[in-house]
Amino acid sequence: MVLPPREQDLSFEAFPEQARAWIYELIAQRRDVRHFDPARDVGPDALRRVLGAAHCAPSVGLSQPWRFIIVRDLARRVRIRENFLAWHAREAERFSGPRREQYLALKLEGITEAALNICVAVDVRAGDEAILGTTAQPEALRASAVCAVQNLWLAARAEGLGVGWVSILEPAVLRKEFALPEGVDPVAYLCIGYPSRVYRGPMLEQEGWKLRVALDAVVYEEKWHTEGPTGLLDAQVSPPPGAPESTPI
Amino acid sequence: MVLPPREQDLSFEAFPEQARAWIYELIAQRRDVRHFDPARDVGPDALRRVLGAAHCAPSVGLSQPWRFIIVRDLARRVRIRENFLAWHAREAERFSGPRREQYLALKLEGITEAALNICVAVDVRAGDEAILGTTAQPEALRASAVCAVQNLWLAARAEGLGVGWVSILEPAVLRKEFALPEGVDPVAYLCIGYPSRVYRGPMLEQEGWKLRVALDAVVYEEKWHTEGPTGLLDAQVSPPPGAPESTPI
Repeated sequence: MVLPPREQDLSFEAFPEQARAWIYELIAQRRDVRHFDPARDVGPDALRRVLGAAHCAPSVGLSQPWRFIIVRDLARRVRIRENFLAWHAREAERFSGPRREQYLALKLEGITEAALNICVAVDVRAGDEAILGTTAQPEALRASAVCAVQNLWLAARAEGLGVGWVSILEPAVLRKEFALPEGVDPVAYLCIGYPSRVYRGPMLEQEGWKLRVALDAVVYEEKWHTEGPTGLLDAQVSPPPGAPESTPI
Repeated sequence: MVLPPREQDLSFEAFPEQARAWIYELIAQRRDVRHFDPARDVGPDALRRVLGAAHCAPSVGLSQPWRFIIVRDLARRVRIRENFLAWHAREAERFSGPRREQYLALKLEGITEAALNICVAVDVRAGDEAILGTTAQPEALRASAVCAVQNLWLAARAEGLGVGWVSILEPAVLRKEFALPEGVDPVAYLCIGYPSRVYRGPMLEQEGWKLRVALDAVVYEEKWHTEGPTGLLDAQVSPPPGAPESTPI
């Protein structure tokens, strides 16, 4: 059997300069969004395109282990947000003094304002056959689902949709709320919708919580080292901290 | 203090139609590449752009926990490939009869032919302060590093560079080879270079190993369910299996 030719390009050339500029712009402009316009819904076509992008992610052994649970039910979201609030209070205790005040002032989720939420889960249950590539690293299945999240996030930005990943949630609560069977694990809980406020850079930087580091501080040559930057790449300096800047939409 | 204005757009509008078309094309054309042209090096500018894209990934609490170790040393790569070969043989035993033959015929890595390898690691060591967002889900740190890998992969495709993720490797060997300290874990081992052969679709599909599933088979509404597709999205049918199609470059 021979596969029918598809329209997809068989060459592997670099994308044209203008396309590459857009792609890097997209990657730079993706933000973790926590401010949503509750009045604007996400249409089925945009949702389908964004999920389709997620489904194009790489997966170990072509396992495609990701599952996307679309959450609109408000009562369910309110229950999930209650778990957020409990863990938010617990996490606040790990900071003291002005840092705790600062932590408590941050908006860290948009669960009920966002048009919809998506629980991304990974199916790691054993099937009839072993999954190629998972013998030495079973955790590659979970990584595949995370790659799908990143594709989703980027496609959403291209559509003008904001995505926020809420990690201040107990996995056991998500498991129960979505009736996940044994062997299906929650990977990410996402809020998706049109944003009402957008920061110039990462919100935690703009709010003065933490700074971005230079690229060359995270690049090493051949080995882990502790003697500072390699000089392989030029230093990239983060903008100075300061008051938040964002724009209402 | 006020942050200096940056040239970055503060609006969050959808990207123009042509830009979106390129972005979806990029996401669809990303492949796991295992065939590399050993004669073509990766220039420092392209490498820097690709690593810069990775460094733009989302990270829990703006932790930026990813570390990229650039690997060019051939002796090191040969040692790592020996570990691949050992685990490859071990994994082959999980398949029997014709499936094992088929498994053994697949090319699953390009460690020594690729221009370079990158070991992506995640630093999960406790610092002076807790990391925002990791109290309920400490695994969010590792997920951040995986998001960086996906950004890297997409940027590489835009540059005409192939990336292959080798998961048939023992993490302990990577840890030792790169002298990773306690609390720094390998996340991904990547081969990067200009490809010598490119498949139309996922190699494992083109080689008849496994099929892609329809998008609507992985989308659920409100809850996990076992009664088949939700009908939320139209079915997307995978092309039929068949002989591999690839193009020499």
